[in-house]
Amino acid sequence: MNEKMRRLGEERSAIRELYEYGLRMKELGEENVFDFSLGSPSVPTSESVQREIGRLLKETPPEVLHGYTSAAGLYSAREAVARQLRKTYGAKISAKHVYLTCGAAASLTAAIHALAEAGDEFVVISPYFPEYRVFIEGAGGKCVEANADPRFHLNFSALESAIGKNTKAVVINSPNNPTGAVYTAEEIAELSRLLQRKSREKGNPVYLISDEPYRELTYGAPAPFPAGAYENTLVCYSFSKSLSLAGERIGYIAVNDGCADADALFAAVSGAARSLGFVCAPALFQRVAEKCVGQTADFGAYRSNRKLLTESLAGMGYAVSPPEGAFYLFVKSPEADAKAFSERAKKHGLLLVPSDSFGITGYVRISYCVPEERIRRALPVFRALIAEYVG
Amino acid sequence: MNEKMRRLGEERSAIRELYEYGLRMKELGEENVFDFSLGSPSVPTSESVQREIGRLLKETPPEVLHGYTSAAGLYSAREAVARQLRKTYGAKISAKHVYLTCGAAASLTAAIHALAEAGDEFVVISPYFPEYRVFIEGAGGKCVEANADPRFHLNFSALESAIGKNTKAVVINSPNNPTGAVYTAEEIAELSRLLQRKSREKGNPVYLISDEPYRELTYGAPAPFPAGAYENTLVCYSFSKSLSLAGERIGYIAVNDGCADADALFAAVSGAARSLGFVCAPALFQRVAEKCVGQTADFGAYRSNRKLLTESLAGMGYAVSPPEGAFYLFVKSPEADAKAFSERAKKHGLLLVPSDSFGITGYVRISYCVPEERIRRALPVFRALIAEYVG
Repeated sequence: MNEKMRRLGEERSAIRELYEYGLRMKELGEENVFDFSLGSPSVPTSESVQREIGRLLKETPPEVLHGYTSAAGLYSAREAVARQLRKTYGAKISAKHVYLTCGAAASLTAAIHALAEAGDEFVVISPYFPEYRVFIEGAGGKCVEANADPRFHLNFSALESAIGKNTKAVVINSPNNPTGAVYTAEEIAELSRLLQRKSREKGNPVYLISDEPYRELTYGAPAPFPAGAYENTLVCYSFSKSLSLAGERIGYIAVNDGCADADALFAAVSGAARSLGFVCAPALFQRVAEKCVGQTADFGAYRSNRKLLTESLAGMGYAVSPPEGAFYLFVKSPEADAKAFSERAKKHGLLLVPSDSFGITGYVRISYCVPEERIRRALPVFRALIAEYVG
Repeated sequence: MNEKMRRLGEERSAIRELYEYGLRMKELGEENVFDFSLGSPSVPTSESVQREIGRLLKETPPEVLHGYTSAAGLYSAREAVARQLRKTYGAKISAKHVYLTCGAAASLTAAIHALAEAGDEFVVISPYFPEYRVFIEGAGGKCVEANADPRFHLNFSALESAIGKNTKAVVINSPNNPTGAVYTAEEIAELSRLLQRKSREKGNPVYLISDEPYRELTYGAPAPFPAGAYENTLVCYSFSKSLSLAGERIGYIAVNDGCADADALFAAVSGAARSLGFVCAPALFQRVAEKCVGQTADFGAYRSNRKLLTESLAGMGYAVSPPEGAFYLFVKSPEADAKAFSERAKKHGLLLVPSDSFGITGYVRISYCVPEERIRRALPVFRALIAEYVG
């Protein structure tokens, strides 16, 4: 068999490893496990999504509703996505350049496989979502890390050095998993200028892969839309967080109309999705996405969880700063070795993801897309945990 | 961009090409298009599946129902699949070796990527489902064709020559798309003996990838279960046809417990699925599969369509023989060039897939998973078409 695939299966991601550990503990009847590992929305999908599912089941003949669609998705759904992007962000994206996918991971693998050729490098901003490396290497590319700045925003001198003649694309994720950073319009504009210059120097485009599953989830200003600032952008989106449908695997890739060879690039995305085994995005949820694109679940719980957790942990002596978006708190580990800290937290029943696999040492990620009650019950445990260091 | 992916996107499969052509014609208001291209079930999913969907939506909190599951799927669903395979086929397959997937294509890509190493060959029986080649080459493998016998059953001397020291696996598909052949228990037993001998000669296993989306759809004896006869088998299954859920993308891979290094191979399947961007199979339909595994939609329409189409076309002078399983009629083209015949048929509004991309010349595939009315209205057109050759 393929040993690399075996290793990827055996050494699951640190996130999934903790999540599976939590599941086992709960199956064993363990009450005091406080799982903050996975980014699975705790907020139910909205009434309007639920109504739409009910309406579709009632009004569409089952052999149509559950049948194959075109590989790129129902054209009406692709039109709805393009319309929403044009209306909300003034985007220049046509329906013919929208490809519905089985969620953000599928959007990323299709985009990366569409672009990657032998020797290609893909630049990621560390800390970064660990699967980026898996997806890039799976496509035969090389994953090159450029450090973020100390506030986890873009560090242009690091980017300047990381982008070279073999760079095919830069991957950004704002609002960011795991840090909660939301890049400003000024940063995106500067990134665009840098990528334009690098593309000129290289003689062909350095693409921007913009991974946007947390697009609508910000606590201050809305997140700017990178494809509006940089033409050679592939937008990777998922309805997982916006509509609380993470398990249903529905998202899209939008190739900016202004991309060099946009039609050919869209064809490459289609070919990549085909080659990877994605026949079409799940049909029922394509239709839900068509009707509900632009809506969001009620994010109020994330706002109050963020406040509760940030203020409480800060009060206990943890080094935290409030996230600007998404639903992760990125906390400095009280000891240099975040894995050791995560292990110690685990003994208390707290499941916190160490930052090492995100490409940075010394932090843990706390997913606060959980019932508030879990946070409240965990607070004394967080307190007992840090007391071991201050002691 | 990657030119191979671009080409795969631009030169869609012959099946999808015709299907998309049919959609465009219908959008243009063309009434007289008789689409026999795609294998999308025309029979609605059963009442019991529809009831189960309704029950799940009513009784499961949406944030649980639509949330992430373990990457391999809900353990209860994996147990239900393993139980059904043990009960129905006396299979030796444990829940821990069942991986829920986004349908048969995903099962195949995960299985192939799990196995493929540089230089590996995968043997397919031609005529074969054209995506096999795409999936094998996408994993860096080489697709080696072994001809079937004239009745489209296994041709052991062709297989004997095709399997060599670089063969990692043989891919079979019974009941077969596109020919409708169903391999007998004797054939499967002989295949098992051949693969055992070849494995011994080679010094490590030649795996069998058994692609079984049409498993329950036979018109005579039930299809034998290959994993029962050959230990080193990976079973690739989809609920697309059995439950008429083709668009919902739900299926599984089962690694036979008796496989060499079954646990490690299962890990490689998990790693491959991860690397390809499959986070988990769609959550709602994992639960539907758990409750409805082993059931089928009402296949009566396929039986009567098969009879109607086979007898009518034979009566007109087409060279057809009744399929033993699945829902495709594989018809000899009245001219040597099946593509030319398919083009001529298209002018009549008949969409028939030429066999060239299946690895054989001189045939067309007619999908009869369509409303009976479409066949009835198409019969005079089939008659007019063959008249052009007899004329």
